[in-house]
Amino acid sequence: MGSSTDNRAPQFDTSQPGIRQFQSWIRERTPLAVQLLDGSGVNGVPRWVDAEYLGLEPANGGELILVARQAMALIRPLL
Amino acid sequence: MGSSTDNRAPQFDTSQPGIRQFQSWIRERTPLAVQLLDGSGVNGVPRWVDAEYLGLEPANGGELILVARQAMALIRPLL
Amino acid sequence: MGSSTDNRAPQFDTSQPGIRQFQSWIRERTPLAVQLLDGSGVNGVPRWVDAEYLGLEPANGGELILVARQAMALIRPLL
Amino acid sequence: MGSSTDNRAPQFDTSQPGIRQFQSWIRERTPLAVQLLDGSGVNGVPRWVDAEYLGLEPANGGELILVARQAMALIRPLL
Amino acid sequence: MGSSTDNRAPQFDTSQPGIRQFQSWIRERTPLAVQLLDGSGVNGVPRWVDAEYLGLEPANGGELILVARQAMALIRPLL
Amino acid sequence: MGSSTDNRAPQFDTSQPGIRQFQSWIRERTPLAVQLLDGSGVNGVPRWVDAEYLGLEPANGGELILVARQAMALIRPLL
Repeated sequence: MGSSTDNRAPQFDTSQPGIRQFQSWIRERTPLAVQLLDGSGVNGVPRWVDAEYLGLEPANGGELILVARQAMALIRPLL
Repeated sequence: MGSSTDNRAPQFDTSQPGIRQFQSWIRERTPLAVQLLDGSGVNGVPRWVDAEYLGLEPANGGELILVARQAMALIRPLL
Repeated sequence: MGSSTDNRAPQFDTSQPGIRQFQSWIRERTPLAVQLLDGSGVNGVPRWVDAEYLGLEPANGGELILVARQAMALIRPLL
Repeated sequence: MGSSTDNRAPQFDTSQPGIRQFQSWIRERTPLAVQLLDGSGVNGVPRWVDAEYLGLEPANGGELILVARQAMALIRPLL
Repeated sequence: MGSSTDNRAPQFDTSQPGIRQFQSWIRERTPLAVQLLDGSGVNGVPRWVDAEYLGLEPANGGELILVARQAMALIRPLL
Repeated sequence: MGSSTDNRAPQFDTSQPGIRQFQSWIRERTPLAVQLLDGSGVNGVPRWVDAEYLGLEPANGGELILVARQAMALIRPLL
């Protein structure tokens, strides 16, 4: 109804190849290099993905960080 | 109905891991380092999060500031 | 119905803390420092906020300007 | 119905103060200075606004140009 | 219903002045200068426009390229 | 209904010329040069496209990378 309680999580469809690829990397704990919109990067192991964020275990250890999916430009597996 | 009164708050789903992570940081008053889309940053303690903004108590004290969630690239807990 | 006349004003929910904070600053005529996505800034007194824009009375006087909410990264009250 | 023919023109609500401000500037042929997301600018007289674009008569004459509303950060009247 | 097959092509309304302007430039094969969000540009003759892309015949010949409409800041006809 | 399980994959309409163009490049394994919003680029052969990502086989070999469609400005075929 579009009321103030009409909350939506757009763009999360687990049947899409992109989300399935994230889920495969999560299952296999594949280290990723994420390039952000400003050209900077962050590396780590993905733990989960949702409609808005990627939960990433930083390459240098430490607590899980959130990467805003809207800020990501390229995602490369590090083999 | 999509009329001019059809206001929506997209992308706020409290069952999603990303929003739950924010809520946990808010409960525990975890200091955060937020990296913005232009590479600049802002540190502080999160007080609330909604569909569009994060309410942040600045690290150096002072009044609550609003961080637009669309402008955030990375969110790291400072331990 | 999603037809070509289905116009929408997304993301404007006056029950959300972020919008309530803007409304409080508007009522109290609190001067704000708005940091934009490119790191530049604009200061002024907020007069109204809607789904897309913030109406801002510039700090140096002059006519009301529109700040696109999508372009805002941080909003800080100037006390 | 959300089918592939479900086309939408979001964010155009003529009862909102921001859109009403544009319509007033259009009626009065007020010259505007538009600052874009990258900090660059374009000046001109607005002729129409729709859900996505502002039709602008350039300050130096010539054909109408389209300014993408998503790319606009600040809009100031030039008096 | 918002299921995983609820695909949408937002923001394409052929009754809007902006889209009608593109369609007129396409019919008349008007060369355009498109300024992108990062300030760079691309010139060419528009062949079609849809909800997300502009199909552009490059000024220097060669194959059609896709310009993401979300990346466009200004569109100027070259006369 | 816009509940918290109302997940959506916006902007993927296989009848649109832009998506059809991607599908043609995928079928013919056409190498592409993708220019991102920050002006940087990535080259490769497209393998699939969905509502959010382009799966790209890098020009220099190696594993498939994901290019966020929201981060793409220009897509040119390399002939």
